[in-house]
Amino acid sequence: MNDDEGDKGAHAKNQMWGGRFAEGPAAVMRDINASVDVDRRLWRQDLAGSRAHAQMLAAVGVITDADAAAILAGLDQIASEIEKGDFHFSADLEDVHMNVEARLIDIVGEPGRRLHTARSRNDQVATDFRMWTRGACAGAADALGALQAALLDQADAGADAVMPGYTHLQVAQPVTFGHHLLAYVEMFARDRGRFGDAAARMNDCPLGAAALAGTSFPIDRDMTAKALGFDGPARNSLDAVSSRDFAIEAMMAASLCATHISRLAEELVLWTSPHFGFVTLSDAFSTGSSIMPQKRNPDAAELCRAMPGRIAGAMTTLLTVMKGLPLAYAKDMQEDKAVTFAAFDALELALAAMTGMIRDLTINHGAMRAAAELGYSTATDLADWLVRVRGTPFRKAHEIVGAVVAAAERRGVTLDRLPLDEMQAIDASITEDVFSVLSVEASVASRTSFGGTAPDNVRKEIAAWRDRLNGEA
Amino acid sequence: MNDDEGDKGAHAKNQMWGGRFAEGPAAVMRDINASVDVDRRLWRQDLAGSRAHAQMLAAVGVITDADAAAILAGLDQIASEIEKGDFHFSADLEDVHMNVEARLIDIVGEPGRRLHTARSRNDQVATDFRMWTRGACAGAADALGALQAALLDQADAGADAVMPGYTHLQVAQPVTFGHHLLAYVEMFARDRGRFGDAAARMNDCPLGAAALAGTSFPIDRDMTAKALGFDGPARNSLDAVSSRDFAIEAMMAASLCATHISRLAEELVLWTSPHFGFVTLSDAFSTGSSIMPQKRNPDAAELCRAMPGRIAGAMTTLLTVMKGLPLAYAKDMQEDKAVTFAAFDALELALAAMTGMIRDLTINHGAMRAAAELGYSTATDLADWLVRVRGTPFRKAHEIVGAVVAAAERRGVTLDRLPLDEMQAIDASITEDVFSVLSVEASVASRTSFGGTAPDNVRKEIAAWRDRLNGEA
Amino acid sequence: MNDDEGDKGAHAKNQMWGGRFAEGPAAVMRDINASVDVDRRLWRQDLAGSRAHAQMLAAVGVITDADAAAILAGLDQIASEIEKGDFHFSADLEDVHMNVEARLIDIVGEPGRRLHTARSRNDQVATDFRMWTRGACAGAADALGALQAALLDQADAGADAVMPGYTHLQVAQPVTFGHHLLAYVEMFARDRGRFGDAAARMNDCPLGAAALAGTSFPIDRDMTAKALGFDGPARNSLDAVSSRDFAIEAMMAASLCATHISRLAEELVLWTSPHFGFVTLSDAFSTGSSIMPQKRNPDAAELCRAMPGRIAGAMTTLLTVMKGLPLAYAKDMQEDKAVTFAAFDALELALAAMTGMIRDLTINHGAMRAAAELGYSTATDLADWLVRVRGTPFRKAHEIVGAVVAAAERRGVTLDRLPLDEMQAIDASITEDVFSVLSVEASVASRTSFGGTAPDNVRKEIAAWRDRLNGEA
Amino acid sequence: MNDDEGDKGAHAKNQMWGGRFAEGPAAVMRDINASVDVDRRLWRQDLAGSRAHAQMLAAVGVITDADAAAILAGLDQIASEIEKGDFHFSADLEDVHMNVEARLIDIVGEPGRRLHTARSRNDQVATDFRMWTRGACAGAADALGALQAALLDQADAGADAVMPGYTHLQVAQPVTFGHHLLAYVEMFARDRGRFGDAAARMNDCPLGAAALAGTSFPIDRDMTAKALGFDGPARNSLDAVSSRDFAIEAMMAASLCATHISRLAEELVLWTSPHFGFVTLSDAFSTGSSIMPQKRNPDAAELCRAMPGRIAGAMTTLLTVMKGLPLAYAKDMQEDKAVTFAAFDALELALAAMTGMIRDLTINHGAMRAAAELGYSTATDLADWLVRVRGTPFRKAHEIVGAVVAAAERRGVTLDRLPLDEMQAIDASITEDVFSVLSVEASVASRTSFGGTAPDNVRKEIAAWRDRLNGEA
Repeated sequence: MNDDEGDKGAHAKNQMWGGRFAEGPAAVMRDINASVDVDRRLWRQDLAGSRAHAQMLAAVGVITDADAAAILAGLDQIASEIEKGDFHFSADLEDVHMNVEARLIDIVGEPGRRLHTARSRNDQVATDFRMWTRGACAGAADALGALQAALLDQADAGADAVMPGYTHLQVAQPVTFGHHLLAYVEMFARDRGRFGDAAARMNDCPLGAAALAGTSFPIDRDMTAKALGFDGPARNSLDAVSSRDFAIEAMMAASLCATHISRLAEELVLWTSPHFGFVTLSDAFSTGSSIMPQKRNPDAAELCRAMPGRIAGAMTTLLTVMKGLPLAYAKDMQEDKAVTFAAFDALELALAAMTGMIRDLTINHGAMRAAAELGYSTATDLADWLVRVRGTPFRKAHEIVGAVVAAAERRGVTLDRLPLDEMQAIDASITEDVFSVLSVEASVASRTSFGGTAPDNVRKEIAAWRDRLNGEA
Repeated sequence: MNDDEGDKGAHAKNQMWGGRFAEGPAAVMRDINASVDVDRRLWRQDLAGSRAHAQMLAAVGVITDADAAAILAGLDQIASEIEKGDFHFSADLEDVHMNVEARLIDIVGEPGRRLHTARSRNDQVATDFRMWTRGACAGAADALGALQAALLDQADAGADAVMPGYTHLQVAQPVTFGHHLLAYVEMFARDRGRFGDAAARMNDCPLGAAALAGTSFPIDRDMTAKALGFDGPARNSLDAVSSRDFAIEAMMAASLCATHISRLAEELVLWTSPHFGFVTLSDAFSTGSSIMPQKRNPDAAELCRAMPGRIAGAMTTLLTVMKGLPLAYAKDMQEDKAVTFAAFDALELALAAMTGMIRDLTINHGAMRAAAELGYSTATDLADWLVRVRGTPFRKAHEIVGAVVAAAERRGVTLDRLPLDEMQAIDASITEDVFSVLSVEASVASRTSFGGTAPDNVRKEIAAWRDRLNGEA
Repeated sequence: MNDDEGDKGAHAKNQMWGGRFAEGPAAVMRDINASVDVDRRLWRQDLAGSRAHAQMLAAVGVITDADAAAILAGLDQIASEIEKGDFHFSADLEDVHMNVEARLIDIVGEPGRRLHTARSRNDQVATDFRMWTRGACAGAADALGALQAALLDQADAGADAVMPGYTHLQVAQPVTFGHHLLAYVEMFARDRGRFGDAAARMNDCPLGAAALAGTSFPIDRDMTAKALGFDGPARNSLDAVSSRDFAIEAMMAASLCATHISRLAEELVLWTSPHFGFVTLSDAFSTGSSIMPQKRNPDAAELCRAMPGRIAGAMTTLLTVMKGLPLAYAKDMQEDKAVTFAAFDALELALAAMTGMIRDLTINHGAMRAAAELGYSTATDLADWLVRVRGTPFRKAHEIVGAVVAAAERRGVTLDRLPLDEMQAIDASITEDVFSVLSVEASVASRTSFGGTAPDNVRKEIAAWRDRLNGEA
Repeated sequence: MNDDEGDKGAHAKNQMWGGRFAEGPAAVMRDINASVDVDRRLWRQDLAGSRAHAQMLAAVGVITDADAAAILAGLDQIASEIEKGDFHFSADLEDVHMNVEARLIDIVGEPGRRLHTARSRNDQVATDFRMWTRGACAGAADALGALQAALLDQADAGADAVMPGYTHLQVAQPVTFGHHLLAYVEMFARDRGRFGDAAARMNDCPLGAAALAGTSFPIDRDMTAKALGFDGPARNSLDAVSSRDFAIEAMMAASLCATHISRLAEELVLWTSPHFGFVTLSDAFSTGSSIMPQKRNPDAAELCRAMPGRIAGAMTTLLTVMKGLPLAYAKDMQEDKAVTFAAFDALELALAAMTGMIRDLTINHGAMRAAAELGYSTATDLADWLVRVRGTPFRKAHEIVGAVVAAAERRGVTLDRLPLDEMQAIDASITEDVFSVLSVEASVASRTSFGGTAPDNVRKEIAAWRDRLNGEA
C-alpha cells in the first residue's frame, strides 16, 4: 500500500498504489493466489500427513514398500532442510503442499510422483490445518492452566485481603481479593472446556476424501487417521473438504477467552491507577518513563484489554467468508489460515502476558481495605441482621437500612461508627449485637454460603482447584 | 426515531427526533433503563426460580412453611394472570422481577416481603436467563434433528441421483445428491453438538450468589439448583452474577449453525434458478408472481441465506458489550437478553423454513444428470484407471489425461464418447476396458472409500444416521 | 422461541420450539416472508412516494387528472386512518406497500389499480427507505448539536477547572475540564459531518427504476425526485433497486458516534465512582438504591457505554447480508430495515441520555484539582522550563527531571514543594524562577499553543463553537 | 504458536506453546509492547514530520538554524539508509519514532537531542498515521478510477448485449450487459466519494498537541500543518492524540467497497460457471488444471468475493478496541496500524485483481442472449403494452399477462412465439402490434426512462462517466 512520503494532502496523486503490480496481471495473480507465505507454517503437519499417507498406500498395496521407503527418506530430508533454513519456498508453486511435493520429486524421482495417488490438495490442506488447529487448542488450554495456577497463588496470598466488591463501579459490598480472582479461575476453566470441546469435535481426519468425492483406490482411512492422532476418518468426503467450522469454533473459544482476559486487564488498569492503587505490577510488566520515574504504565494490561478486537475480528472474518458458500471447495476458504494463525498468536501472547502480570503483582492490602469501607458497604449486612435476628421482613429491613445509612451519611461516619441510639431512633429493635456484623471483616467472614466470599470458602476453593489442575496436568 | 414524512431533503430539520422524549429526563431514563418490555419473556423462569427459592427458604427455616405456602399460591395466581393476559407489566417497576414481586406483595402481603431474603436481582436474572438459554439450546438441537431427518429422507430419494460435484462452482467430479445432502447432515450434527456442549457448560445455578458476595443466611443451594434442573450451584458468587459467556457461547453455536444454513440456502437459490433446475421447491415455500405464474421465487431460501448476518450480528453485539467490563454486575449486561432472544427467534425460523423446504422439494433427476456430464467430470477416473490398471505414476497419469481431455474438447464430445484410438494415440497403454470408468454412473459407483460418494456408501450412512437420530430422540 | 418453564435441565425435551408453527408451512412462510411488522414504520414515506408518483403520472399523461385526484384523496384518507389507529395492517398482504395499495383500491376503485403503473415494489421500497434513513441522519445530526451545546455549557462552567490529564489511566499532565469536554465536541462534530455526508450521498431518488430495468412509460423522474426532496433521480436502475450501501453508511456513522458516546460514558462511570468523584450526576440520570440512599448508580452511562455493541452489531448484520449478493433485488435485502431502525432507535436514546447527563451534572472542582496533583503531573513543565530558560537539550532535560521527580518521591512531596537546593543538587542551573511553572494552575495556563489546554484557549474555542453551532442550527 | 508436528491427538501435551517466551517476562513484554515491526512502515511519514517540525522550531526560534540544518541533514542520511536497506530497526527501541531519533542522535549529536522539543510520540504517531491513511484513501480512489475505466470499456463493448436481469436469481426482465456493469460504476463512484470524504475529514494536523495538553513553546502549528499537506492544525490537543475515528472511517469505506467488489466477484463466479457461460476470464486471471485443461477456475474472483471478511474484520477490530476507552492516549490504540495496513493491502489487491479481470474478460453474447429469453422475461412488456396502448389499468393488465404466460408455458414457447389468437382468447383487445414489444431486443430498447437499460441510455451514460473520470484524473 501507499507508503509514499511525497503526498502533499488528501487529494494528491498517489504514484505508489499499483507500483507493486508493475509487472502486470501475473504479479497481481501471484499475490492474490499464492498462499505459501502463510501456509508454509503447516510444513510439519504436511510432512506428517505425507508420511502417514505413504505408509498406508504401501500397506494396502497401492505403492510398493520400496517406493514408500524412498518417499519417507525424502520427506525426512525435506524436514531437515526446512529446519536448517535451507529450503526455498517458492510462490510459483503456490502452497506448502506443492513446494514439498516438487522437492520430493527432485530428491527421490518417480516414487515421489506416486505420493499424490488417492489424495488431493483439498483433503491434504484440510488435514494439515485441522492438526494445527487441534494443537493450538491444546496449547491454549495448557496456557490457561498456567494462568489459573498464577491466579490461585495470588488468591492464596489475598484470601483474607478485603477489597470493595463493585456493582456499576460503585462500592457495593466487601469481598476478598482471593474470591475476586477465583471468579476468573472459573471463567478460564470454561474457556479451557471450550477449547477441549472444539479440539474433540474437529478430531476426524479428512485425509482420503480426495478432491471431494472419495476415491476408487482401496485406501485404509482408519490407518491414516490413527497415525495422525485423529479419533477416526471424517464420514463424508464433501463435508471433509468444504467445512471450516472447526477453525471458526476454535476462534470463537479464543474470542470468549480474550473477552475474559480483557475484563481482568481492565481491572489491572484500574487497580494500578493512582485512584485505586490496589496492586503494583512488577517492573518487567510495566513501562516506565524516563521523565516520571515513579510512573508504571500498565501497557501490557492495555494491550491485553485490546485483544478481543483482534481475535474476534479474525473470527468474524472467517465467519463472513464462509457465509453462503456452496459446496465443495471454493478458493474463498484459503482465507482461513491467516486469521486463525493471527488469532492464536495473539491469544498466546495475551495469555503469557496476563500470566506474567498476575504472577508478579504485589497486593496493596491497605489501599484495598480502605476502599472497602467506602459507600456504606456493609448496609446489606445490617439488613440481613434485621431479618435474621429480629425477624423483620426483608423489604421492610431494606427501608430501615436506608434510613440508617442516611443518618450515617449526615454524620459522615461509616456504619460501624454510628452510635447505637441513632440506629434505635430509626428502629427500636436494633441492639448492640448489630456491631458484630458491620465491619468489613465481619461482612466477608459471614458470607459462608456455597460460592460466597468468606475466607474459609476461598481457601477451600483454592485447594479444590489446585487438585483439579494437578489432575489435568 | 424519525418517521416524519414532512422532511424535504437531506438537510431539512427534523421535528420528530426527540419528540419521543418530550417529557424530559424522566422519559429518557425510563426508556434507557427499563427492561421489562424485553425481560417479561422470562416470566416462566422467574416464577420457577421464586418457587424454588421459597421452598428452600422454608426447608432451611429462614421463612415459615406458612409463608412459603402463601408465596407459592401467590405465584400460581400470577402465572394464571399472565397466561390469561390479565397481568399488567409496568415500566415503572423496571423489570420482570420487580413486577412479579410487587404483584406478589399485593396478593399475599407480608410473606411476599420475605421472598427476597438471601437473593438479589443480580442472581435472579442470571438464573432466569440461563434457564431460558438452556432451553433455547435444547430447542435448537431438537429442530436440528428434524432438519437432519428431512435431509435423510431426501438423501434416500436421491441416493442414486448423479449430479455435478463442484469446486469453484466449476464441475469437477460427479457425486450423488444423497451424498451431497449427507454433508449437511454432518454439519448440522456438529451444530447439535455445540448446542449440547453450551447447554451443559452453563448448567450451574447462580441462585444464592446474591448481589455478588454470597449471603450469611444458611441457604441450601444444592436444593434450588436441583429444583431448577441444574447440575449444581455455581462455585463463585462474583462469577455467577457477572458472566455472560453462556449466552455468547449459545449465540456462537447459533452463528455457526446459521452459516451452515446459509450455505444450503445458497445451493437452493442456485438449484432453483433456471440455469440449474436441479430441484423444485413446493408452492408453500415459493413466492409466486401473479404476472409470471411459472416463477417460483425462493424467498425463504434467500432469507435463510441472510440469517448469519442477523445472528452473528447479535453475537457480536454481546461480545462487544462484555469487552473490558470490570466485575461484578454492570448495567451494560442488560443488553444480553434482547440479542439472545432475537438470535434464537431468527434461528428457529430459519431452521423451520429450511426443514420445510428440504422436506417438500422435488428432485429433477434429469437436469442433475445432464449437468454432471459437463466439464469432463470423469477425467480423474481416467487418471485413476491409469494408475490402478497400468501402474502409471499419478503425476504422469495426470499429464496424459490432460491431453485426452484436450482431444475430447476438440471433438466436442464427453470422455466416454471419445474413440479409443484417439486415446491410444496419446497413451498406447489405454485399452477398451477404460470405458468402464468413464460414465458418470461408473464414476460415482467406484468411489467406495469410506466417506466416498458411492450409492451403497450413501445408503449405509443414511441407515446409520437414522439409527443415531432415533437413539437421540 | 422456547419460553417454557417446564424444562428441567439442559437435556430436557422442549415442546415449545416449533409450537409457533403448528399451522405448518404456511405459518413458517408467513413469518419468514412478511415484513409488514417492520416496514409499516415507513407508511409516511410510502404515502409521500405514492402522492408524488400519481401527480407525475398525471403530469405526463399516463393517468388522467381525475384519476390522480381520486388517488390523492384516497391516500389522504389512508393517512388519516393510520394516524387514528384505524388501519389494519395485514401480514397476508406482506408489506406496507401492498397494504396501502389494497386499501387504496378498496377506497377509490379503478384509479387505484392504475397507481402501480411504471413502478415496482423494488423501487418503491428503495425510495421509502432512503427517505427514512435520510431523515434519521438529519435527526442524528440535530441531536448531536444538542449534545455539543450541552458539552459547551459544561466546558464553560469548567474552563478553569483543573483535572488530571491521563495517559494509560495514569496521571500525566494537568488539563482543564473544559478542554477535556471540548475534545468530545470535536469528535461529535466529525460524527455530524459523517451523517451529513451520508445523507447527501444517498440523496438520489430510485423511483422510476421500476423492477430493475427502468420503464417504457414516458415518466418524469426529475419531478418525483424533486417532490420527495431528492437532489435528482438515481442514474442506473439496477443500482437503484439493488444497493443498500446508503443504509450501511448511515449505520457506520452511527457506530462511530456510538463509540465516541461509549468513551464519554466510560469517563462518567469512572468520574462518578467514589475513587474519582469528579462529577455528580443528577437524580434524574442516576438509579438510586433504597438500601443505600447515597448510592447513585450511573445506569444510563453504562447503557450508553454498551451502545457500540448494539449499533455496530446492526451495521455488521447488513454488511454481512450484502456480501456476495448478485444483482438485482434479492430477498436477503429485506433484512435492511429492522437493523437500521434498531440502530437509529438506539442512537437516539443514547444521544438523549448523554445530553441529559452532561447538561445536568455537577462538577466537583476540589476532587478534580486534588487528583491533578497526583503523579508529579508537572514534570513536563519542569523539562520544558529547562529547555526554554536554560537552553538544555530536550533529551538531557528529560533526564534531569527524572532525577528531580525521584527526589520528590523520596521526600513524599509534589514538585512545587521540593526545596530549591535539592533541585540544584541535581542541576545547578535551576533557579527560584522554576516554581512559577510547577503548580497545576501554572501548567495549564502555560499551554497556550493552538489547541492547548490553557483556559483562555478553552474560552475562545467555546465561543467559536457556539458561533458555528448557531450558524448550523 | 504451536507448529509442532509431534502432537498425536487433541489431548496431547503441547511443548511448543510458550517456547517462544523461554526468556521469560522480558520476551513476553518485548513481543506485546514493541510495535516497530508494524510501524516501521511509517518511516517516510515520520521523517517528513520530523523535517517539518525542525524547520518550524527554527523559524520560531526554539532551535537555531544551524541545529535545524544538522537535523535535516541527519534525516536525509537516515532516509538514504532505510532506502538502501542499511538501517537496523531495533525492537528494544520500541517503535519507528525512537529508532529514528536514536539514529539521528548517533549521526548529529546534540542537535538531535533538541528535536523532540514541543512534541511527543503521541502527536507524532497520530500525525504519521494520518498521513499514511490519507494517502491510502487517495490510492484507493485512484484504483477505483482505474476499475471504473475498465468497467466502462466493457460496458461499451456490451452496450447492446442482451442478458437476463435477475431478481432472486430468477430471470425477470432482459437488460444489457453494459447497463449491468454501469450499476457497478455507480457503486464504485460512491465508494470513491467515501474515501474522499474520509480523507478530507481527517486532514487536520495533530502535530503540536504534544503528549495531550499542548505545549508552552511558541510553536507555529499552521506552518507544520501546511508543510505536511494538512488543511490546518487539529483544534483540540486531547482529541488530536486520542482519536482514531479517521482510521476506522477509512476502513469503513474500504469495507463497503469490498462488499461491492464481492458482489461483482460473485457474478463473475456465476457467469464463468458452465451453467451460465456469459463471460470468459483471461488466462492470466484463471487458474488452470493440468488434468482438465478446459477448466478455468475463477480463483481471483473467489478471493475477491472473500475480501469483505478480511476488511470488515479489520474494521471491527479497531471499532471494538476503541469502545469505552477514556481519554487520552491508551496503549490499546497501538492496535490501529496493523489492521489498517492489512485492510488497505487487501483492498489494493482486490481492486487490482478485479480491474484486471474486468479489463481482460470476453463477453459471450450468444449465451447471454439465450438466457435472456428464459422465464418469459418480457411479460412485463406485455403488461405495459396493455396499459399504454389499450388503457387497461395496471393491476388488471397484470392478471391478463398471468393467463398469457400460462398459455405460453403450456405450449412450451416464448411469449413472442405464442399465436395471436391464443392471446386474444384471453384478452380480445390484444392486436398484432403487441409482437413489437415481446422480443428481448425490443424490451431493452423500450426502457428509455432516465436510468433505464436502453442501449442508447447506456451509451450516453458511458460518455458522461468518461468525461467525469477524465475530469477527476
